[in-house]
Amino acid sequence: MTTKTLLDARREYTPALTPILQDIKQLKFTNVDAKTHIEPSIADLFPHTKGNTLLVGSKGSGIKPSPMRIGVVFSGGQAAGGHSVIAGIYDALFSYHEKSHLLGFLNGPIGIIEGNIEEITKKKIDLYRNVGGFDLIGSGRDKIESKEQFEKSLAVAKAHDLDGIIIIGGDDSNTNAALLAEYFVANDCKTKVIGVPKTIDGDLKNEYVETSFGFDSACKVYSEMIGNIGADCLSAKKYTHFIKLMGRSASHIALECALQVRPNLTLIGEEVKAQNTSLDAITKQIADVVESRSKNGKDYGIIVIPEGLIEFVPEMGYLISHLNEMLAKKSQGVTIEEVIEQLDDKASQTFQSLPKGIQSQLLLDRDPHGNVQVSKISTEVLFLEMTKNELKKRKFQGKFSPVNHFFGYEGRSGFPSQFDTTYCYNLGALAFGLIATGHTGYMAAIKNLEKEVSKWEIFGLPTTSLMHIEKRKGTDKPVIEKALVKLDGEPFAYFKKNRESWKLSDSYQSPGPIQFFGDESIINRVTQTLLLEK
Amino acid sequence: MTTKTLLDARREYTPALTPILQDIKQLKFTNVDAKTHIEPSIADLFPHTKGNTLLVGSKGSGIKPSPMRIGVVFSGGQAAGGHSVIAGIYDALFSYHEKSHLLGFLNGPIGIIEGNIEEITKKKIDLYRNVGGFDLIGSGRDKIESKEQFEKSLAVAKAHDLDGIIIIGGDDSNTNAALLAEYFVANDCKTKVIGVPKTIDGDLKNEYVETSFGFDSACKVYSEMIGNIGADCLSAKKYTHFIKLMGRSASHIALECALQVRPNLTLIGEEVKAQNTSLDAITKQIADVVESRSKNGKDYGIIVIPEGLIEFVPEMGYLISHLNEMLAKKSQGVTIEEVIEQLDDKASQTFQSLPKGIQSQLLLDRDPHGNVQVSKISTEVLFLEMTKNELKKRKFQGKFSPVNHFFGYEGRSGFPSQFDTTYCYNLGALAFGLIATGHTGYMAAIKNLEKEVSKWEIFGLPTTSLMHIEKRKGTDKPVIEKALVKLDGEPFAYFKKNRESWKLSDSYQSPGPIQFFGDESIINRVTQTLLLEK
Repeated sequence: MTTKTLLDARREYTPALTPILQDIKQLKFTNVDAKTHIEPSIADLFPHTKGNTLLVGSKGSGIKPSPMRIGVVFSGGQAAGGHSVIAGIYDALFSYHEKSHLLGFLNGPIGIIEGNIEEITKKKIDLYRNVGGFDLIGSGRDKIESKEQFEKSLAVAKAHDLDGIIIIGGDDSNTNAALLAEYFVANDCKTKVIGVPKTIDGDLKNEYVETSFGFDSACKVYSEMIGNIGADCLSAKKYTHFIKLMGRSASHIALECALQVRPNLTLIGEEVKAQNTSLDAITKQIADVVESRSKNGKDYGIIVIPEGLIEFVPEMGYLISHLNEMLAKKSQGVTIEEVIEQLDDKASQTFQSLPKGIQSQLLLDRDPHGNVQVSKISTEVLFLEMTKNELKKRKFQGKFSPVNHFFGYEGRSGFPSQFDTTYCYNLGALAFGLIATGHTGYMAAIKNLEKEVSKWEIFGLPTTSLMHIEKRKGTDKPVIEKALVKLDGEPFAYFKKNRESWKLSDSYQSPGPIQFFGDESIINRVTQTLLLEK
Repeated sequence: MTTKTLLDARREYTPALTPILQDIKQLKFTNVDAKTHIEPSIADLFPHTKGNTLLVGSKGSGIKPSPMRIGVVFSGGQAAGGHSVIAGIYDALFSYHEKSHLLGFLNGPIGIIEGNIEEITKKKIDLYRNVGGFDLIGSGRDKIESKEQFEKSLAVAKAHDLDGIIIIGGDDSNTNAALLAEYFVANDCKTKVIGVPKTIDGDLKNEYVETSFGFDSACKVYSEMIGNIGADCLSAKKYTHFIKLMGRSASHIALECALQVRPNLTLIGEEVKAQNTSLDAITKQIADVVESRSKNGKDYGIIVIPEGLIEFVPEMGYLISHLNEMLAKKSQGVTIEEVIEQLDDKASQTFQSLPKGIQSQLLLDRDPHGNVQVSKISTEVLFLEMTKNELKKRKFQGKFSPVNHFFGYEGRSGFPSQFDTTYCYNLGALAFGLIATGHTGYMAAIKNLEKEVSKWEIFGLPTTSLMHIEKRKGTDKPVIEKALVKLDGEPFAYFKKNRESWKLSDSYQSPGPIQFFGDESIINRVTQTLLLEK
């Protein structure tokens, strides 16, 4: 029991840095004006930082560094690699000047607002190097929104004499980072704010951010599990597995897992939306696969369903919005009978078509505003039950033994894959490098990720260049649009070309558990999505 | 996309053999009479093989081998390492004599009965070396039971001129193997029958079989997932995870995962049974943990529940047997109201105390005989819902956001861990070695598994020595008793000593994904159960 564990080995490991980041004192950024477009309505909201243009990193002639004080915060859901970002910041910061300080804001942005801070010492970071989770400093979903919250954040930044704050988060958190950057400049505060693109969902990406960190690890964990179930399927030959995968609206995770494992059917929310596919039509699609496989002697299979699918199904969207309206008017709970009676015909009909368990779920699981919690709907059970009914209607003669799964939390906080480890360590160094060179309102961005790390290119991407205005709760807000699966993109095209053959054949692949040692091509394998988007 | 995958690397790998098995032509077994006791009632059932005594393997002076024809079959649920057993048989068989033949019975014991056979060629086995699943030849749950089935199996063995059949299976399958061995001897058939101890549940073990194969891999996959959820828990600090783990009656898997990951509460079926703990008492135990953690500012946690727990809860056993009686009399389905009215007071009360969803599950999921399917009861949801109600009763003021999980199939068919790979490869060679030296009615057994492979000791264990008589469906049957968790054993003692401190502290460990390359102490790590039982 005293032998070396994987945890020990990962803690000891130091990821490679791309050459430009190896000596942070020599780092230089060059403005590339032409490449940055900011929407006029956004520019109005960012009068002090709207001038930011794309920065390209390169090796400079060197600067004389002085000690720096940097704060770092995790914002939103976990993604594997967060601690490696902080390790990257830490090492860059202390190689820049050994008398520096790295401060962690505790439990998310609320830590900035309330000045809840802990110094990240060498001893602490060494325990978390290349380890999963966000537990070094915790995370949270609060945002810095009100005037008071901005003022408090400013006071905290000043009180701690911070040279910079690095916000590790998704689309909303990076928007928040840009707003904070603008606010600090407007208020003559020296604190720079830099964002780092995080989210397992893979929906924060663009020309310069090729992928958000955590996506690679999450897809690998889910693909390991689906691949294992595939082998089990082929051996037992008796279950049809309905697997829901985490990933909010976008279906990137489901698509990537489909490319890695080749299940018999993978639903893609964006396609369902584009084709306006009804609940009934999706069910029929699943039942068709079950039926035609059964005719080929295969009473088993794998159906993959993205978490966000349900929002893309037209009549479910209609039902949910009407249910929300109705529930808002009731202080007490409502019965299924009341719902059926009081909803309009269209919504009521959809509601009645749902399995009993899902009906209760829609009425019971509500958020603090009384709204239906879409993420808590067991979409995998919904389609399992509806397929069961559909097969009964068709007088299906084969065997149908469905099993449902939801893979989510276990993919967010595992050990980051070698790719995410290296990517995050470089992102951390880059984020600090942007601050050290005096930049604010940028997102750390790295390109050429499919190549070896020595060929990676680093950028500072003006966060404002990703924004547009959206109405949220009635008011205009700057937002970074979520990058959904592109139906004309290469990953989807590859999937579309091959999915017919995956339906009937048993083409399941088994990628196996994430490996950290040995053959480079195994441990450094990147996602199919990244490869195909090149 | 043309780079090397983990699958490629695993296929290419050749596990180490313990020295005695390295030259199968030199293998010798010595009888150790004193160590074998067979119950008289069992001896009566095995007149021709009751004389089997423990065999100890060693290096002999060599024999002159001739070609052999061996059949192999998977019986029952998947366990990682099955293909490595076959690879072990294959390599031993062909190193013994290159003109040999290895035949696979397809889809389980039914393949023996029906003579459904496929030759296992070098090309085929090379695709499955060290790969998870049982899909090279499939598996099944049929047994060879009737007179006709034994006769058919005999005819098949003779028709294919088989020197031996190796049955890879759990307790029941090994019993079946012993019966077949006896039947073949009684009928002057030369075919030897040898069993290989397989089951992820870990309940097939004894003095000579230190662990069944597949247990190590399954526990590692589940522990990876629970460890990931632990890191997520500590980062998000808002969910209480109810995790059900596969593993039939015995709680070995839950106990091993508890030792590896240290969840806040792990229920052990055997302890519940010994203490006659009621549903209500278990619920209160969980609620106590939730409440006391909450008082310490920790509104999150992990509760692990073994699949088999429910059968050990006294009033659930009572309810289920009464429900079965009642359902047997009804040709049509019954309503919840009817059940409540018609069951006796005790059973009805238990039924009414269950959450609605579980009530329906008990009535809907029935096996072909009309019985309640215990394995399909969502025990994790049951306790989640009951804890919710209990906390409401207590006017609990903290936050309780429960999430339920079931980890099962994904742990049965993944790549076998390095331990299972090596163990299985040796088991396969040993099973063939027993046949080559003319033995039948034995189980392949290896000791000193916690040591390096060169120190392993090999045995032939008379399968009859593990048996006793049990009434099954009204008739006396020879069975191998399932090895349950020993409440006076070392693994449970270690757990018991430490579990109080795991309740409130955040002691979650993250073992991470199974590794195949690099540091030996990481890749060859054995289970805590195995270490503590030494």
